Amino acid sequence: MPKLIVQKFGGSSVANVERIQKVARRVVGYKNKGYNIVVVVSALGDTTDELIELAGQITSDPSEREMDMLLSTGEQISVALLAMAIHKLGKEAISFTGGQVGIMTDGNYTKARITRIEADNIREQLKKGRIVIVAGFQGVSSNQDITTLGRGGSDLTAVALATALQANECEIYTDVEGIYTTDPRIEPKARMIKAITFDEMLEMASLGAQVMQPRSIEVAKKFNMPLHVRSSFSQKSGTVILKEVTRMEDALITGITLNRNEAKITVCDVPDRPGGAAKLFKELSLNGVSVDMIVQNVSHTRKTDISFTVAKTNAHKAIKVTKKAAARIGAGDIILDENIARVGVVGIGMKSHPGVAAKMFDTLAQNRINIEMISTSDISISCIIQKKFAEKAVRSLHKNFGLG
Amino acid sequence: MPKLIVQKFGGSSVANVERIQKVARRVVGYKNKGYNIVVVVSALGDTTDELIELAGQITSDPSEREMDMLLSTGEQISVALLAMAIHKLGKEAISFTGGQVGIMTDGNYTKARITRIEADNIREQLKKGRIVIVAGFQGVSSNQDITTLGRGGSDLTAVALATALQANECEIYTDVEGIYTTDPRIEPKARMIKAITFDEMLEMASLGAQVMQPRSIEVAKKFNMPLHVRSSFSQKSGTVILKEVTRMEDALITGITLNRNEAKITVCDVPDRPGGAAKLFKELSLNGVSVDMIVQNVSHTRKTDISFTVAKTNAHKAIKVTKKAAARIGAGDIILDENIARVGVVGIGMKSHPGVAAKMFDTLAQNRINIEMISTSDISISCIIQKKFAEKAVRSLHKNFGLG
Repeated sequence: MPKLIVQKFGGSSVANVERIQKVARRVVGYKNKGYNIVVVVSALGDTTDELIELAGQITSDPSEREMDMLLSTGEQISVALLAMAIHKLGKEAISFTGGQVGIMTDGNYTKARITRIEADNIREQLKKGRIVIVAGFQGVSSNQDITTLGRGGSDLTAVALATALQANECEIYTDVEGIYTTDPRIEPKARMIKAITFDEMLEMASLGAQVMQPRSIEVAKKFNMPLHVRSSFSQKSGTVILKEVTRMEDALITGITLNRNEAKITVCDVPDRPGGAAKLFKELSLNGVSVDMIVQNVSHTRKTDISFTVAKTNAHKAIKVTKKAAARIGAGDIILDENIARVGVVGIGMKSHPGVAAKMFDTLAQNRINIEMISTSDISISCIIQKKFAEKAVRSLHKNFGLG
Repeated sequence: MPKLIVQKFGGSSVANVERIQKVARRVVGYKNKGYNIVVVVSALGDTTDELIELAGQITSDPSEREMDMLLSTGEQISVALLAMAIHKLGKEAISFTGGQVGIMTDGNYTKARITRIEADNIREQLKKGRIVIVAGFQGVSSNQDITTLGRGGSDLTAVALATALQANECEIYTDVEGIYTTDPRIEPKARMIKAITFDEMLEMASLGAQVMQPRSIEVAKKFNMPLHVRSSFSQKSGTVILKEVTRMEDALITGITLNRNEAKITVCDVPDRPGGAAKLFKELSLNGVSVDMIVQNVSHTRKTDISFTVAKTNAHKAIKVTKKAAARIGAGDIILDENIARVGVVGIGMKSHPGVAAKMFDTLAQNRINIEMISTSDISISCIIQKKFAEKAVRSLHKNFGLG
């Protein structure tokens, strides 16, 4: 059996006809080396945003079922065009929608979860020697409705297909050369990371390095499917994401993350008795507001403050829900701060080095940056600071942790 | 049971958001009157042409399967947006692709024929009181590939659905107010026809009045489904297409048609023995060239000339095939003339009036227009003339047959 590679190309990799032709040449290059290939493609460039805007001109509150019907067309256009470009190079290729290759999901439109993949159709086509092209980001529910997997869902399609087909490799082609120690637009000295663990990548992704969707990394981790993030515009080898990484240099931390798309909400004077926080966060969850960081300190009085962050796009909905819940649990004022940023240090190395937190706080203090919230995990430390200090914080942390 | 109407809106009726909203208001207006409604929509404005152009940038010879994958997205976008616009007006609506409502076709990509419609899904949604919106122009083959029905296929979707659902009415909304006695851009005195028979409409459509696709009229005729062609931009009542029309005025003819998109090919000196013509036209058919008008006169020598017309877009392919076939049957020169036009008079009235042909030829002669080919059916007479005389011919025929 020839080796099987799943290759995923993001929207910027197929933004126009020239780029689609370039992707076709790369895919055919691998085919010529003897690989079996499944290609997963996103929508062309800004197509998805354009479709969202079109819907926005009609209604501010579109039906999610109809949004999925609308948005899934973007990837369908891509797969057809890529198939044509590969045909033009003299190779057999065949395109499919998510539904046609049995990507079954639940019925949660716009953020469906894959329940199973009936990949027989793909296997049959691969046996015929064809390059199989699959529309990313989409599936089909049990009642045959088209569903989409949420932003970045094409990564998930690729990882899930690689797992279902027991692929030898899963390559994620994007418009950057790999995962960097921090955002190179902020710190030009940022270095590309050759290998990173799933756990580190999860922290990097959810803390703001927007190269890969966290859910797809979770799936890759769960099924131990190594991922290879690389640029569709160069031949460089990029970053490999694995279960375990042996590093020559025993680096303390792997990268510095930044997220400027969150808002902080503080609920003051929450009565310090069991169940208050639970009620609040249950209400937020029922209203579809994802909460990211939550901080509550011990209280010395009978009241305490709870702070949390949400995506800025959800901030106003969150405030509305929080106000209602706060009234019910007898809490005080609600304060919204949209001018915050979250900086984080990530690295499995910190497990065995107790000084990381101290070094991080010290670096911020030296730069006169006040820390408003702190949250830690096994392999990361995050601080909420004022947004205006964000870039300064990233650069100084990147330097002090020796990542340059 | 409330009355069921199938309403089809063409691309110009949904060319932009404002027009989609207008269609939504019209549909909801009918719903408020108590009708059950199935809406069939084409792709937004020039979407289909834009997608064809995109494919053309990649290859001049795209796979037909992939073309269908590509083009079917146009209608999918339309149905989702129309559903949203109807929701915005407070009515329940649900959109479907052709495949989702069981429009089953054969596997002839880009020009598939509907084999059957499994309309249970639509019936179920109508029972729930929902407006059902179906993507026109598309279906799905037995192996779940997306297929399209050819240009104007949305008309066919509407007529086929109306038939399958035993609808009370089938309305075809377009950008003209109905069927005219001739093209109003050529003859401003052209009159709208209130009622026309299927047979007349078939002659009008295939002879060049490009309001409706001939196949859809054939299906409507076969199942005796009355069609109502009207404008989506006005409330006027348009043209009804029926099995039989009782006309007060006993009009001799119903309309004047014009087609300037054909080319004439003449094969000279074809040996006058059985099988020659058969070989030629079989070869053309095998190569996918549709032949329209064919004229061969009796021969007084052992050789004869055969002339025929094809769509101008197919002319060069036709010439290639014809040359090969001509060599094989021992024919002489091949002459291509792309500067021709076909004018026709159509009307069931002519059956009982022998003077129609004479009057037509006389009108052309009076205007010094030479007739190059003549072809007749029960209810039409067509003449091929030089293209530069086309408009003059239409206007003078329109006048002499008293249509003004």
